[in-house]
Amino acid sequence: MKIGKATVAESAICTSDDETIVVRGADLCRDLIGKLSFSDYFWLLVTGQRPDAKASRVIDATLVAIAEHGLVPSVQASRMTLAAAPDALQGAVAAGILGCGSVILGASQDAGELFLRIDALAREKGLSLEAAATEVVRGLRERKLPIPGYGHPLHKARDPRVARLFEVGVEAGTGGHFVHIAEVIESVLPAITGRDLRLNVSAAIPAVLLDVGFPATALRGVPILARCAGLIGHLTEELAHPIGFALSYQATREQRYTGALPPGVTLKAKE
Amino acid sequence: MKIGKATVAESAICTSDDETIVVRGADLCRDLIGKLSFSDYFWLLVTGQRPDAKASRVIDATLVAIAEHGLVPSVQASRMTLAAAPDALQGAVAAGILGCGSVILGASQDAGELFLRIDALAREKGLSLEAAATEVVRGLRERKLPIPGYGHPLHKARDPRVARLFEVGVEAGTGGHFVHIAEVIESVLPAITGRDLRLNVSAAIPAVLLDVGFPATALRGVPILARCAGLIGHLTEELAHPIGFALSYQATREQRYTGALPPGVTLKAKE
Amino acid sequence: MKIGKATVAESAICTSDDETIVVRGADLCRDLIGKLSFSDYFWLLVTGQRPDAKASRVIDATLVAIAEHGLVPSVQASRMTLAAAPDALQGAVAAGILGCGSVILGASQDAGELFLRIDALAREKGLSLEAAATEVVRGLRERKLPIPGYGHPLHKARDPRVARLFEVGVEAGTGGHFVHIAEVIESVLPAITGRDLRLNVSAAIPAVLLDVGFPATALRGVPILARCAGLIGHLTEELAHPIGFALSYQATREQRYTGALPPGVTLKAKE
Amino acid sequence: MKIGKATVAESAICTSDDETIVVRGADLCRDLIGKLSFSDYFWLLVTGQRPDAKASRVIDATLVAIAEHGLVPSVQASRMTLAAAPDALQGAVAAGILGCGSVILGASQDAGELFLRIDALAREKGLSLEAAATEVVRGLRERKLPIPGYGHPLHKARDPRVARLFEVGVEAGTGGHFVHIAEVIESVLPAITGRDLRLNVSAAIPAVLLDVGFPATALRGVPILARCAGLIGHLTEELAHPIGFALSYQATREQRYTGALPPGVTLKAKE
Repeated sequence: MKIGKATVAESAICTSDDETIVVRGADLCRDLIGKLSFSDYFWLLVTGQRPDAKASRVIDATLVAIAEHGLVPSVQASRMTLAAAPDALQGAVAAGILGCGSVILGASQDAGELFLRIDALAREKGLSLEAAATEVVRGLRERKLPIPGYGHPLHKARDPRVARLFEVGVEAGTGGHFVHIAEVIESVLPAITGRDLRLNVSAAIPAVLLDVGFPATALRGVPILARCAGLIGHLTEELAHPIGFALSYQATREQRYTGALPPGVTLKAKE
Repeated sequence: MKIGKATVAESAICTSDDETIVVRGADLCRDLIGKLSFSDYFWLLVTGQRPDAKASRVIDATLVAIAEHGLVPSVQASRMTLAAAPDALQGAVAAGILGCGSVILGASQDAGELFLRIDALAREKGLSLEAAATEVVRGLRERKLPIPGYGHPLHKARDPRVARLFEVGVEAGTGGHFVHIAEVIESVLPAITGRDLRLNVSAAIPAVLLDVGFPATALRGVPILARCAGLIGHLTEELAHPIGFALSYQATREQRYTGALPPGVTLKAKE
Repeated sequence: MKIGKATVAESAICTSDDETIVVRGADLCRDLIGKLSFSDYFWLLVTGQRPDAKASRVIDATLVAIAEHGLVPSVQASRMTLAAAPDALQGAVAAGILGCGSVILGASQDAGELFLRIDALAREKGLSLEAAATEVVRGLRERKLPIPGYGHPLHKARDPRVARLFEVGVEAGTGGHFVHIAEVIESVLPAITGRDLRLNVSAAIPAVLLDVGFPATALRGVPILARCAGLIGHLTEELAHPIGFALSYQATREQRYTGALPPGVTLKAKE
Repeated sequence: MKIGKATVAESAICTSDDETIVVRGADLCRDLIGKLSFSDYFWLLVTGQRPDAKASRVIDATLVAIAEHGLVPSVQASRMTLAAAPDALQGAVAAGILGCGSVILGASQDAGELFLRIDALAREKGLSLEAAATEVVRGLRERKLPIPGYGHPLHKARDPRVARLFEVGVEAGTGGHFVHIAEVIESVLPAITGRDLRLNVSAAIPAVLLDVGFPATALRGVPILARCAGLIGHLTEELAHPIGFALSYQATREQRYTGALPPGVTLKAKE
């Protein structure tokens, strides 16, 4: 069935014959393997260009920052999946990645788009970043939308990864324009929301990445790739020391059934 | 419901409070972000130890080697999924990762286990590696099992990534023990199978990784993490230049329906 | 980590002890197995109530209508995934389900919400359904949003499943209120869009389901469950007569690489 | 890339033009929608034949039996995934289905293959079913393999669904040959294993399905389709009454970090 207009597959990423594999205009074996770090290669795959030294340092730092944060829900889902289907590691990784959605890890993308909107508004209307941020954040609040990248369930003061990522940006010598926008939003938030919502890592990541030219459309890919590494760490541990079923047991120890019982049926109490 | 004996979740990977995140015995913000490459961090997450210089070089090379090889089936599946569900990048990545199975990318793990079995057999019985390889490969053939990591649909002569990965192993100064086993298998295969099956990248990866001490149980994680990077490259291109539906259209242009038609029903020919 | 306020898991769906399983207030073994059809059980699971005769007939018809439509993109993705990972049937099913997104099968949910919005607007403002539909559809067009459930790449005249589902609604004796709204939208579309976009199955399904009281929040579940059945049909065929790799081969026969070649590299033409 | 020999996609499941959709030799709109139950359609999709009355009754009963059993690990994984990614219902369903693996729901397929092997062995060697079952089960124990479909973490006496499914088989008038084999295995198990492992639902399902001619290669599809219905029930409840994050909070309340702390770092105790 033909859906849409395009009928021939065009791609600028890779071509090959039996002797040579070309990726993004480079010979994979001659130019890339053993010569480029995996993070730099990720940048090349996504953007078509090799990263400069600043970009190289920042993309590495963001991938390290977001790869692992313990037994978060998506890691639990992944370990439970491996416990039930131990032959299919790829299925357990996939289950974990499916939890990188709008609420948890996808906020990086949304925060990056927020920064770009504020930046564009300031330019278009000749506003200060403070004024532009105030206007955009107010708009979000009026439509009862969340402010992506601000507030964290555990790190009530600032998430410690934020300061470190901003420091890496400074060390790398980026201009810091989008880091500045991220901090401007943080400064205007209390007056608008009445709450002291601090920058979390999902705002820091797009801020430092936009400062080195990473494309906004690929921002959600950064936490996904990073978490993939964390998930493989957890799943390797799960194979050796399984806790997937222990997690599911603990999760329901205090569970309450709020439905009805059928006439004539009584159940034993859980131990 | 309690399944199995463990009831408390234990993990040696990560702990945190509101100010500090500890990963594998290091302070994430103080010791890791901006100080360790993402590949080295992957090694740390999986093994609990930082890689030495050899391991660092080899893990990077393998991740780069296997991340991208064009519009392979799992990439097509992923791009078709994004075309149908463009809001959920994580779903398209997951669909692509689900194609890292025993036939395509999972062979790395199986090949690594094959090398370890041959190595163990040679030690146990005091056999030469040639003799041990012959015995193990014969056993696989008798049970009509495939030889994982040998033969490639496109690269009929040796997959060019093999030579390059082995070269990186030499450059890094690894002992090359498992690379040697991989080549021994290649040398005994024609006599046993009657076919000139050459080492492919799925055998080269575990060979060089086992030579630097990467755990065999985590081998399947390497192509999965690598492909995750490749998939994000493709999906970023898909958002800008969609071909997901074009691929599915092309795939079925010559499709044949081999079932029956109901009485009285005729269908128009496809254009 | 505590995210959000709820800390105890409450559910009204199922409870059990070692002898009895209670689902939605019924004894699974005594009251349901062998006494209720799977479609009726699906309705019970989702709504907490048994369907009446009308609802029973309509839910069955919608599940049959949308389960199968040949080698659509999500089926191709699923068959390619099984070809690459034949040990993990669940992974191939999951890959296929991941293609039930906003563009392809998820439109049922969006169309249902569209009907409810028009219905609510007509009531609130005392408008005719024609006027309400015109206002809502105009709003969508102004924001360049698609009209979910109208138009089909293959069935340019009306999708034949639409008439049949509406007929089943009439046979079952539903009031037909939402079917009427669906047809009103179809009648106002040409004047607003300049295109003769006909009702497709993704609009017919929510129309007949809302007419028997199916909850709008669960509409997306209907095509997902239905496609799960279709996918299992395809994957059973794939195990016996594999075409997953043939599909991916065909898909890229005319593929064009639009990137650069490295200096000094030429590639052989594809056969 | 061409993988394998097939290059043209052949399928006997579905074909269509703009006016007619043909599925398994029937006109979908004229012959199937509103005339066949969804369970019967599932049978038709998988087997290419309509079920007879016995098969129709048994397939329905098995789908109802296995669709729902409370907050089992795969349901928890699914609800956590929806909590993190509420926009992508298909992703949460996929995550739940990925937990239908060899340990939990996939045992149906393995148990069915066990029955067929015992049946074939008895025929080939002219053994009684008792003798054939003893030989096969002993072989599994010697290789330290599990006996798929026997034993249950909660239902220590017989899983109540077993008796009910066997009853449905009798009511439907099946021959009961494979049910008999399943019970023969149960009777020989204590002497071989020293444990009183009772038939669970994952053995009862293939027993009654093989008795009505369901293909063994599709057995794993039955719990997957059934669970898909259960998952959609849970996810509809999750959208209204979220507990995904509560489950993950409970799961880790007693979590222990067994790794090291970095020099100079102390963490606050969890509340």
